[in-house]
Amino acid sequence: MKKHMVTKRWKILNSEVVFNNDWYRLRKDIVQLPSGVVINDYFVSELKSVAMIFAITPERQVIFVRQYRHGVKQVLLELPAGTYNNGDVPEKVASRELFEETGYKAPELIFLGRVVGYPTKDSHHIDLFLAKAVKYCGANYPEETEDIEVVLIPLRRLLNFISRGDIMVSGTISCIIKALLHLKKINSKM
Amino acid sequence: MKKHMVTKRWKILNSEVVFNNDWYRLRKDIVQLPSGVVINDYFVSELKSVAMIFAITPERQVIFVRQYRHGVKQVLLELPAGTYNNGDVPEKVASRELFEETGYKAPELIFLGRVVGYPTKDSHHIDLFLAKAVKYCGANYPEETEDIEVVLIPLRRLLNFISRGDIMVSGTISCIIKALLHLKKINSKM
Repeated sequence: MKKHMVTKRWKILNSEVVFNNDWYRLRKDIVQLPSGVVINDYFVSELKSVAMIFAITPERQVIFVRQYRHGVKQVLLELPAGTYNNGDVPEKVASRELFEETGYKAPELIFLGRVVGYPTKDSHHIDLFLAKAVKYCGANYPEETEDIEVVLIPLRRLLNFISRGDIMVSGTISCIIKALLHLKKINSKM
Repeated sequence: MKKHMVTKRWKILNSEVVFNNDWYRLRKDIVQLPSGVVINDYFVSELKSVAMIFAITPERQVIFVRQYRHGVKQVLLELPAGTYNNGDVPEKVASRELFEETGYKAPELIFLGRVVGYPTKDSHHIDLFLAKAVKYCGANYPEETEDIEVVLIPLRRLLNFISRGDIMVSGTISCIIKALLHLKKINSKM
């Protein structure tokens, strides 16, 4: 794998920010491939990375949020998540977003790994966390732009939700699967 | 759900393309939330949607591609996939990409559903397909900018790859899970 990392990597001949905003930053690279081919306009969006949390109540319910997402113009079920800046501690962002969006507090977080969404075009990643035995500690405090409905789904029904397409955001699906694998709730009969 | 779709939807007061390129199109909306709050600069990237394929050989191997991805600057294992323009038939794009990237041909495709990657910021989606008993029909013909290694992974080992983080792209993970659920290869012991 190491070998491929070296030989397949593209060389950046020039890099320029073509659009810059607190929420959206777009970079244009001139890159040279190992074959020698030069691409003059390779665009990469530099969004903030995300911490996401799979939080289970003592009653074996998993905490989801349902909200309108303007990118796809749909109301979607997702796991609580929030963006962070370089230097932020991902665990803290995950705990904070869980509390702010849902009112639940996590006593302890387990890191499940990292996934990426669109590695061809985006530079950011999602850090995934698991929290067991979370407790409700008061009303949620969403930001002004957030209209969040908290939805509890029984752990045993999650795969049905994915199968039926009622959960359809790939980061959320990945976090559910990594959590169920960690909890040894999925086995495979091949 | 219908009720929420109506009440939670944001109203677009103005929409403007701020960056436009064949590979990257960025839109700036002025939106009004149901609460009355107005956001003056909500950015949405309009990338092409994607068709992805989970293809199984008669020997119960699943066909992956490994290539360098410049967004995250890593070499990654993913399912074959390709973008399409409005009007393209997703099934045809999935079959075409499978053949061009790997040299395998799919006799029949089963639609597994649709997922979205970053619904807050992106408008595009991924259509997921399953193909059984695919056959190798000749060398792969990647595009000039593609340096693709074809990797066959036994069906029964896929969850281990996800668990260990060797497969870490959320769209690919989602497609694997939807395929394993469809094939009844995952059961859940809750």
